[in-house]
Amino acid sequence: MDLGSIGMEKGLLYETIVTTVNADHTPNAAPIGVICKNDKEVVIYLHHGSKTVRNIKRNHSFIVNILKDPMVFVESTLGNLSNNYFEQYLNEFYIKNTDAFFIADVKSLKDVEKKDNFGVSVTTVLKADVSTIIKKKENVEPLNRAIYGIIEGLVYLTRMEMVSGDMEKLYRHRMIEISRIVNKVGGVEHKKAMKKISEAFSRYDE
Amino acid sequence: MDLGSIGMEKGLLYETIVTTVNADHTPNAAPIGVICKNDKEVVIYLHHGSKTVRNIKRNHSFIVNILKDPMVFVESTLGNLSNNYFEQYLNEFYIKNTDAFFIADVKSLKDVEKKDNFGVSVTTVLKADVSTIIKKKENVEPLNRAIYGIIEGLVYLTRMEMVSGDMEKLYRHRMIEISRIVNKVGGVEHKKAMKKISEAFSRYDE
Repeated sequence: MDLGSIGMEKGLLYETIVTTVNADHTPNAAPIGVICKNDKEVVIYLHHGSKTVRNIKRNHSFIVNILKDPMVFVESTLGNLSNNYFEQYLNEFYIKNTDAFFIADVKSLKDVEKKDNFGVSVTTVLKADVSTIIKKKENVEPLNRAIYGIIEGLVYLTRMEMVSGDMEKLYRHRMIEISRIVNKVGGVEHKKAMKKISEAFSRYDE
Repeated sequence: MDLGSIGMEKGLLYETIVTTVNADHTPNAAPIGVICKNDKEVVIYLHHGSKTVRNIKRNHSFIVNILKDPMVFVESTLGNLSNNYFEQYLNEFYIKNTDAFFIADVKSLKDVEKKDNFGVSVTTVLKADVSTIIKKKENVEPLNRAIYGIIEGLVYLTRMEMVSGDMEKLYRHRMIEISRIVNKVGGVEHKKAMKKISEAFSRYDE
């Protein structure tokens, strides 16, 4: 089995839950974007110093969970995911109600300085090989945000004729953000579609 | 077959492409939100006076296409979807590369005055029975925006500590919009998750 068997396409970024093992052998979960590099390999950008990074640096492997359960995303972001959400698999943990999961073995790991809107920060860039893939559901579709951005962009585009002032400014700002996201997480078709939307949107330029 | 066979759940709103037949027998397509009322019935709110409404009022039936092709959403929103995207089915048309489609027969149709941020407008509320369901792909997952709203809300929540001023204001505004969308299109679990996010967000209240 390769990443295609769980619907992952080369070059796209998927929203997943990464589970790792803490130093005291308890499970940890965090929402993390995973880029499908090819059928057998993923790339991840992690906040330096997070629990997930420390666990991965110690254990050299982790589990990527493919699911859409909203509460799992909320609780793992807030750091509150209770222990009964986890299930053991060999020496690792996965999320019990996940649609699918795979084990990733770290191939390379590099700390990089990054500058963005929020200042300078250190990002850990990680490449990992995919080993075991387990499907818990027959039909697995990983979570990719690109089509959502497209839909939202189209909503704003069709409303542009009706808005003005602050609202119009808000839409412009949001459109830039949407385009950024779609180009970051999407595939060729998403980027082409976003380009069409941005072009149509530019008719409303001040 | 019922709507469950294409992944639709009671109470959720899905982003679809509705195809109808124009008076001159050419095909028409528009992006439209479809609410799954139960396994055999859908509810739709339509802009009064749109081509889609006029076609449905004349023909009393239409086709709902379940797909995620970004270009189909863009071109049908812009009113540019070229004729070779359509395929005939009995007296109707569907989108050739759709994952699934079903025929909907109008059961009731009512024009209602609605007041929102953009002024007073007339909305056509339509109930329809689902007859034939055709799956073109084995694994069909209809497009629901709730989980994307959850993910986006979580992104803003975790960034709140880092932002201030205009950016903070923008995030607050966006969070209200996200909550509105999730509660409009999502299921019980999405709404529960969104409530948790809003509660955590309110810690940053001015």
